[in-house]
Amino acid sequence: MKGDKRWQHFRSSLCHRQELGLTLDISRMGFPEDFLPSMSEAMADAFRSMEQLEQGAIANPDEERRVGHYWLRSPGHAPDPEISTAITEAVEKIRTFARRVHEGEIVPKPGKRFSEILVIGIGGSALGPQLLADALGKPGKDALGVHFFDNTDPDGMARCLAQIGSALPQTLCLVISKSGGTAETRNGMEVARRAFQALELPFGAHAVAITGEGSALDRRAQEEGWLERFPMWSWVGGRTSITSAVGLLPAALQGLDIDGLLGGAAACDEATRDRQISQNPAALLALMWYFATQGRGEKDMVILPYKDRLVTFSRYLQQLIMESLGKEKNLHGAIVEQGIAVYGNKGSTDQHAYVQQLREGVNNFFATFIQVLEDGGEPWEVEPGITSGDYLRGFFLGTRQALSEKGRPSITLTLERLNARSLGVLIALYERAVGLYACLIEVNAYHQPGVEAGKKAAAAVLSLQRRLTPFLASLSGSATCEEIAQALGQPEETETLFHLLQALAANSRGVKAIPHEDPAKIRWTSTQPETASGEA
Amino acid sequence: MKGDKRWQHFRSSLCHRQELGLTLDISRMGFPEDFLPSMSEAMADAFRSMEQLEQGAIANPDEERRVGHYWLRSPGHAPDPEISTAITEAVEKIRTFARRVHEGEIVPKPGKRFSEILVIGIGGSALGPQLLADALGKPGKDALGVHFFDNTDPDGMARCLAQIGSALPQTLCLVISKSGGTAETRNGMEVARRAFQALELPFGAHAVAITGEGSALDRRAQEEGWLERFPMWSWVGGRTSITSAVGLLPAALQGLDIDGLLGGAAACDEATRDRQISQNPAALLALMWYFATQGRGEKDMVILPYKDRLVTFSRYLQQLIMESLGKEKNLHGAIVEQGIAVYGNKGSTDQHAYVQQLREGVNNFFATFIQVLEDGGEPWEVEPGITSGDYLRGFFLGTRQALSEKGRPSITLTLERLNARSLGVLIALYERAVGLYACLIEVNAYHQPGVEAGKKAAAAVLSLQRRLTPFLASLSGSATCEEIAQALGQPEETETLFHLLQALAANSRGVKAIPHEDPAKIRWTSTQPETASGEA
Repeated sequence: MKGDKRWQHFRSSLCHRQELGLTLDISRMGFPEDFLPSMSEAMADAFRSMEQLEQGAIANPDEERRVGHYWLRSPGHAPDPEISTAITEAVEKIRTFARRVHEGEIVPKPGKRFSEILVIGIGGSALGPQLLADALGKPGKDALGVHFFDNTDPDGMARCLAQIGSALPQTLCLVISKSGGTAETRNGMEVARRAFQALELPFGAHAVAITGEGSALDRRAQEEGWLERFPMWSWVGGRTSITSAVGLLPAALQGLDIDGLLGGAAACDEATRDRQISQNPAALLALMWYFATQGRGEKDMVILPYKDRLVTFSRYLQQLIMESLGKEKNLHGAIVEQGIAVYGNKGSTDQHAYVQQLREGVNNFFATFIQVLEDGGEPWEVEPGITSGDYLRGFFLGTRQALSEKGRPSITLTLERLNARSLGVLIALYERAVGLYACLIEVNAYHQPGVEAGKKAAAAVLSLQRRLTPFLASLSGSATCEEIAQALGQPEETETLFHLLQALAANSRGVKAIPHEDPAKIRWTSTQPETASGEA
Repeated sequence: MKGDKRWQHFRSSLCHRQELGLTLDISRMGFPEDFLPSMSEAMADAFRSMEQLEQGAIANPDEERRVGHYWLRSPGHAPDPEISTAITEAVEKIRTFARRVHEGEIVPKPGKRFSEILVIGIGGSALGPQLLADALGKPGKDALGVHFFDNTDPDGMARCLAQIGSALPQTLCLVISKSGGTAETRNGMEVARRAFQALELPFGAHAVAITGEGSALDRRAQEEGWLERFPMWSWVGGRTSITSAVGLLPAALQGLDIDGLLGGAAACDEATRDRQISQNPAALLALMWYFATQGRGEKDMVILPYKDRLVTFSRYLQQLIMESLGKEKNLHGAIVEQGIAVYGNKGSTDQHAYVQQLREGVNNFFATFIQVLEDGGEPWEVEPGITSGDYLRGFFLGTRQALSEKGRPSITLTLERLNARSLGVLIALYERAVGLYACLIEVNAYHQPGVEAGKKAAAAVLSLQRRLTPFLASLSGSATCEEIAQALGQPEETETLFHLLQALAANSRGVKAIPHEDPAKIRWTSTQPETASGEA
């Protein structure tokens, strides 16, 4: 497309929402003129479904749950007054708790103040807080420093504790799990507890729970007299929990503007209920995904924010989009294997990494550029009249142009500035786009049946390990992996046993190998356990 | 596949290299028995090409360059004694420099010591050092803390400086750019210089250059009397520079084991020259990529390291693989649009994010699991006999099983432990696999022609901005974007001008908008510049 024609196409298709500080440019997606009209009926259905969802219909049928993350920033929209009140009270409780921590009313011990937060959670219970902390935090100026246990890697947790270092006695742990039964989070809590115990400090005096009422975690927090408990509701999914206590409490403690975040999300929710598609950036996003991927995930979505603070946003979207849309069956039970693969980091850094392939290689993606007009930082010039921010913008415009020239489609989102409000806008924009797109492709965006299979298989592995350990302790002489599998009555788990045996050996936990090239001929012998098992 | 048959397949196809502490399991890739034999001729050619490359052939024909990253850890293999000597001397110089910094012989000022490093680089000049710092660093125990300017985002740089905070006078800046002309790096250097100037500190007394001999950066470092200069050679590409001074100097300063890193890489290079394919993990990796993607990048590569410290490795591989393989033309000039899209973070965290889609959704990927046998961290039990590391392993095995059940192929790499040596092994393994795969698909893995287009387009944008600024200063009254484009004689750049105008307005730099819904009808008027341009 020639420059002047491109300009006409740009100005006529631009979706600018002044009240959101947001502009969406879809002029480089290459869709034909009749595409938007051809989708208008399907979109009308999608709007109706979303309206029912917002009104409290069971939108997650196989879990019999309502889906209410939109109510979190607009409690008046909740279908029941009880829910409205619960939301309002929870936000007030968060504000009050954070204020009391900041003002030294809630303290780790008399005369001391909390200086750090350790968020213990995984998935939606980590990525939301991580996004807020990373995108909005001001190093050296935040009210509290923020750290994360977001996995069950003992080395990763030890590293995090080393970063906290001598500040552990001034650290407030936020344990986040809706069911209270998420294994990684439970493990993180146990490891944190041990670290406090090693200093002879009671964990409960440093702990807060964010969990469903009556969950195992909730009961434990009550029994042990933790500092406070905050609610997670059945109608908020993990990947859309960022505007619940999950995101708000760590953010408020860090000193971030949670009212701005909620206000931005509420304004975007309002704007993206607009059924006039050309004025609705979420509808246009969903339609562009549909166009680019043929409604079947045929292209990957590459997220390129030209802003260091948004590097976590790509990962946040990866969760939101892939977990919501990546489904085997549609709403009618037909096998569809849906989804859209999402990846990305930040520009212009990524131009020096994988943009080579985007421009010239496998044509299997569409890009989403995110630019922020206000540069932030120092307005220092690096050449007469030119700042480092001008370069950042130049690289964004240049890369977009270079992709266009090769027929690689791209969407551009422009934010006036990056702050709590505009981040709230961005989050709500993508939540709505995911909801609308899920309607278009007729999948349930609010469950994750595939996650269970991995958890069950993991539980089977641990159960096998629990049987293996006493067997090894009783083992005299040596045995091969196949012999052990036979003895345990699980010959079909020989490979799993091999993995367990080699890990136990590597960690000096009661077994060692007599090496052999063929894994089937390695003989395993019992040793005196050197670590850990003394506590069994 | 049934459990017992799976075990037989597992043991017969396992590639275990004792001397590397590395095992590769390809038994879950689902390739037919005749696949490996069918590729043996192509692989023989690939080995010959790699041998020629290692012997100093021009492997990057359009840049007329040799490709010598393998020589860096085995200087005796370099084709010229001058190169061998240069490599050995550079490593010795790095060791000496790091020792003198650690021992307080090289200091920011008398009586003070350097406590922080600020690495200023982008692409290969940032990702390599970031990987080493992240995977091997020990918070609180490292000799120096490490920070990065890896972009030209002024806000990102301000945030990094805020993290360094009052330690800036004790900060050693490593400016890394082969040509010395990388704009982002030059900008980072200018911003750092300003930050030191603000404290009335001379930048040169805190700076070291890693650059090509005689580059603009090299000359500047000489003129200004920087602390030291380290070489970058034309025969080392950015994405394979991690075992050159680019990776080694920051690592040595941080106190990491650079000899272990080099030793591991050298041992892996040796092992992966083995032409017996079943014993060569790099050859098997390349062949599995070929099988999974049909040699055309038809599937994405998802990297799932079950180890927090390896989260950056996915991003490192994204650069190494996509920039090397993502090519428009093959070696014969035919249009092939090659490459493999790579993404991933870490397990089990990602199970709570996008593994839902991997198991059930779009079947457009193959997974690579990376597990580390030694758990690290504290061996604390979270249940009787079970540690958090056991859970991590359980989730890895469970997820792999859950993917297999749904016919999603996966590769598993097992490291005995994670340290400098095994990280060197892993890096060299993937470098070799990329080299071999590039031979199989006949592309030049060592250039990046697509990157130039984006840079040129960016330069055109900045050049337009340089003409726009004086025009705006002279503007009386107001003008539309189209009128300004006409006046500057570049009507085809109207959209670019619109982007520049709105950014200048957002940053209060000499122009403001009289709003209108239609971008073409926004009128722009000159204002007194409020920031920055006073320095022009």
